[in-house]
Amino acid sequence: MQLQCPLPKMDFDVITLGHGSGGLLTHQLLESGVFDVLKNDLLDTQHDGAVFSLEGKMAFSTDSFVISPIFFPGGNIGSLAVHGTVNDLAMCGAIPKYLSLSFIIEEGLPMNDFWEILLSIKVACEEAGVQVITGDTKVVEKGKGDKIFINTTGIGTVPQNANISTKNIKKGDKIIISNSIAAHGIAIMSLREGLSFESEIESDSRALNGIVKTLIERFGEDIHLLRDATRGGLASVLNEIAQFTALGIEISQAKIPLEEQVAGACEILGLDPLYVANEGVFVAFVAPEIADKCVDLLQTQAGSQAAAIVGEVVEAHPKKVVLTSGIGGRRVVSLLPGEQLPRIC
Amino acid sequence: MQLQCPLPKMDFDVITLGHGSGGLLTHQLLESGVFDVLKNDLLDTQHDGAVFSLEGKMAFSTDSFVISPIFFPGGNIGSLAVHGTVNDLAMCGAIPKYLSLSFIIEEGLPMNDFWEILLSIKVACEEAGVQVITGDTKVVEKGKGDKIFINTTGIGTVPQNANISTKNIKKGDKIIISNSIAAHGIAIMSLREGLSFESEIESDSRALNGIVKTLIERFGEDIHLLRDATRGGLASVLNEIAQFTALGIEISQAKIPLEEQVAGACEILGLDPLYVANEGVFVAFVAPEIADKCVDLLQTQAGSQAAAIVGEVVEAHPKKVVLTSGIGGRRVVSLLPGEQLPRIC
Repeated sequence: MQLQCPLPKMDFDVITLGHGSGGLLTHQLLESGVFDVLKNDLLDTQHDGAVFSLEGKMAFSTDSFVISPIFFPGGNIGSLAVHGTVNDLAMCGAIPKYLSLSFIIEEGLPMNDFWEILLSIKVACEEAGVQVITGDTKVVEKGKGDKIFINTTGIGTVPQNANISTKNIKKGDKIIISNSIAAHGIAIMSLREGLSFESEIESDSRALNGIVKTLIERFGEDIHLLRDATRGGLASVLNEIAQFTALGIEISQAKIPLEEQVAGACEILGLDPLYVANEGVFVAFVAPEIADKCVDLLQTQAGSQAAAIVGEVVEAHPKKVVLTSGIGGRRVVSLLPGEQLPRIC
Repeated sequence: MQLQCPLPKMDFDVITLGHGSGGLLTHQLLESGVFDVLKNDLLDTQHDGAVFSLEGKMAFSTDSFVISPIFFPGGNIGSLAVHGTVNDLAMCGAIPKYLSLSFIIEEGLPMNDFWEILLSIKVACEEAGVQVITGDTKVVEKGKGDKIFINTTGIGTVPQNANISTKNIKKGDKIIISNSIAAHGIAIMSLREGLSFESEIESDSRALNGIVKTLIERFGEDIHLLRDATRGGLASVLNEIAQFTALGIEISQAKIPLEEQVAGACEILGLDPLYVANEGVFVAFVAPEIADKCVDLLQTQAGSQAAAIVGEVVEAHPKKVVLTSGIGGRRVVSLLPGEQLPRIC
């Protein structure tokens, strides 16, 4: 995506402490570009909050993004911050509506980086159909932050036919993975380690709300649980669910969608793809009778063409995730004790 | 306030990168204390978002807090983060309901500091009548953050008789300051500079939603605008309003409530109290006929006992704030070009 800087005439080349002061420079920064870029009817440029009307059941979710590096193949911290919160809302079965946007910027961030991030936020919001309606900008001294951290917090409406909850999971539920795993983490790690491949591995960062809306319209309450497999990857999400439900989870390694190049990179980097972060992949627990139709539908949608049933919920080995390997061996997949990939999102 | 650490048995004395991994340590941190401390019916411990029901007009506001030092007389970054967002919602005329809570922690933060901050958040939420219903924890490497940054984002409901907007401001409106100014900024600066006074100057950080609710119940739409005078202080808020309305603002220095000790500290530190941040003071623009009654009511409430009418809206000098000094001189009070007090909130 080619983004043009809308502001060739800022007085500063970099963000300074004054841009976070609440004084003249803050106003210049906001009025000379931020409000224009994010423009919408509800973005209140004169107050510290926005006012809107909604009815009924709502979802609310927050995420702070501290990824390093801030630009990476397939996106940057701005698009990621939109996708991350939009996806968390979608995983509640909600239709994301409004976002707040809060920056913590390290003094010295090049102004052009800031605008590029802001434009990516705008594009990601448009694609996901959400609006940024309130925000905040803070600046910290050089060495007290790391370029830019972004918090997005979102509100969405939950349709009546959505009923997404860990409590709905039953023995026999099929487990679907929406797309090939591990691309986000590997894209970031390759960049950090200076690895290059035949074709560049891109982050899978994308908004999933469109796909989820389609699924829920079609299958309603037969979709029991949705979870995006971000930090900690697929293994962590499945472990959390197993522990909460006190049921067992069986998965088959051969069925888990994984691109060959990503698999190769995982080997080089010594990473187990099951633990690598995704930013555009979700796990769905669904009633067994709709599982095949669900995969068929997913495979017709951009962003979930590699969807597959990878396992099911069992009564054996409660609270444990057991993987059958490609050659038939079985092993328990546990939660990682520490940090495999710091600052991946 | 004496807070006891609820968790004498954590395996770690400090926060590590693993606590932000989304894996086992993150779970331990959350399950061994965070969820218990913040406990409420909506705090969803199994999902990335919370679901609730509300109807009608709502306010939405976000703030990231990067104050340094994180502990100060009168509060800490945790209580401040609750007060700040609760107050932004209150300034929309809203009754704050729900908060999200997101931490960006620098590796090495003492675990006891984290619990003390968390307990202050709990107490501040209880006092303000709000609930934390969703959250996030990220950890960055030593030297890539500064102890802890907190984002809170809040949702509140706007009562039917509240109509708070810069557009409501008219010539003749009286300007009320809710309490003595400059205490927060001076408390922080004194700490940073190692100054001590006869009695310690404490931050005025407090939730204003109770006071605002009382005002709106009593005076409804005659309260035209509310703004808390945080970063940039009273001068910055008044300038923003003058510029947006294209009306003039007259204020009288002699009427602005300012404690003697704070005034003295401002002189020592070379700071103009008009620009010093407050975290428990708001400016109200009200219809002239209710101004005296409004001040009378404020003076009966804890946290606004020094309330006073300090000026009014005029047609002369549009977009400018003019101050009449104690000895009768007049000067324009402008927006500060740069940063007077970095990281004050």
